[in-house]
Amino acid sequence: MRLQHALFLTISLLFSSFSFAEVRTEVINYTDGDTNLQGYVSWDDSIQGKRPGVLVVHEWWGLNDYARKRTHMLAELGYVAFAVDMYGKDQVTDHPDQATAWMSKITANVDHWQQRANLGLTQLKAHSQVDADKTAAIGYCFGGATVLQLAYSGADIDGVVSFHGSLPAATEAQYANINAKILAAHGNADAFVPVEQVQAFKDSLEAAGANWQLISFGGVKHSFTNPNASSYGIDALGYDADADRRSWQAMQGFFDELFAE
Amino acid sequence: MRLQHALFLTISLLFSSFSFAEVRTEVINYTDGDTNLQGYVSWDDSIQGKRPGVLVVHEWWGLNDYARKRTHMLAELGYVAFAVDMYGKDQVTDHPDQATAWMSKITANVDHWQQRANLGLTQLKAHSQVDADKTAAIGYCFGGATVLQLAYSGADIDGVVSFHGSLPAATEAQYANINAKILAAHGNADAFVPVEQVQAFKDSLEAAGANWQLISFGGVKHSFTNPNASSYGIDALGYDADADRRSWQAMQGFFDELFAE
Repeated sequence: MRLQHALFLTISLLFSSFSFAEVRTEVINYTDGDTNLQGYVSWDDSIQGKRPGVLVVHEWWGLNDYARKRTHMLAELGYVAFAVDMYGKDQVTDHPDQATAWMSKITANVDHWQQRANLGLTQLKAHSQVDADKTAAIGYCFGGATVLQLAYSGADIDGVVSFHGSLPAATEAQYANINAKILAAHGNADAFVPVEQVQAFKDSLEAAGANWQLISFGGVKHSFTNPNASSYGIDALGYDADADRRSWQAMQGFFDELFAE
Repeated sequence: MRLQHALFLTISLLFSSFSFAEVRTEVINYTDGDTNLQGYVSWDDSIQGKRPGVLVVHEWWGLNDYARKRTHMLAELGYVAFAVDMYGKDQVTDHPDQATAWMSKITANVDHWQQRANLGLTQLKAHSQVDADKTAAIGYCFGGATVLQLAYSGADIDGVVSFHGSLPAATEAQYANINAKILAAHGNADAFVPVEQVQAFKDSLEAAGANWQLISFGGVKHSFTNPNASSYGIDALGYDADADRRSWQAMQGFFDELFAE
């Protein structure tokens, strides 16, 4: 639009032709009691020095290629991203019954659920390239609820982003724990999350005095960020390109805010 | 964060020292029947050629310095911005009773309300620097409701943004009119907009099949974008720096999306 913008763009293209993101990945094995967990970390090796770290929490399917893809995308944005394993090594499925069973097992005990998420955060903070004072967590579906539980646990983390999460309300006992800023991206046509649940979520965060925002996307179903959403044969799931792009952009603006402080 | 980012920044600063936004302003007199209206247009004269146009609709106080400030800010972002006059020349106040009287007069007849907003849009599109195929409208408080009415009227406009608007629901008769994409930024603690009204707004847009998003900001009162909000002695009004910055950023991302098409 402006002449100088065009010049910047030209120069930017010149520079980018000389610099390539060198995304490196590593598998990280760790344990929770007797359970073997296998996380996945990505970062751009062409960047020097420590940088903010972002935890990525998978959907109810387990730590699959989709979670790894988001981890890569965050590495390309300049973060260290760690895909936490919430179920256990190789516990990945595309069958809803199996996913429900694994998810129910971990969510049945909220303390344990929070603890396992915090184990992932510990892994992230221990990474040599992470500035442990600048961290956030994002999660999808079950992972969205998980990052909220991470906030409710009182984890030392700057902010969390829930994408089509189930929006669990904070309990009164958790109110005082919440330090993290919260951003929730929600499909208004998400059949898994009744209107009353959204309201209870908002009411609890108001009562807690939390710093929170919720973006509702009109006509948008559960799993709106996942291009494979409709491949599972479940009518309640649906990809939405607008909501995917808008929520990812909102996340980036949120991170800019969190990590500038 | 990245080395090349630091270089871009340096170059950017060099360029910016050689270029100045030259924001020009003009008063535009026009009429609605017997009513004299006086709008206000801003644009950056250092930019060549036609560019997207943005309508700015004032708060219930009338077309005051706050609306003019936002118009300047939009000019600095590279748009032509036109502050529409919804009440009539010099009808500006800081008394709530007077503001309510003027607002009630124009909102009492929805057709007339929409028509007066559309008159502003006509002025914007007629400006020599505006690409009439790329337009949006933003509005504050009463102005937020007004830009929604503009969308409900079937106006040929790419998108509208309501900042702490009263979120009127679309009527069934209006559903088929809505072409504009809608973004609403709402304070969750806005005492002027009951939860039921927010729900009715969302339900109507879902029924209409509109492309809409609503951002709720936790703990945030009415008039959250206006630094003078608390100077009126009304407890329900309150500025919120986070919500102001976040909503302005969301608007810019929305415009990028609208005007790229």
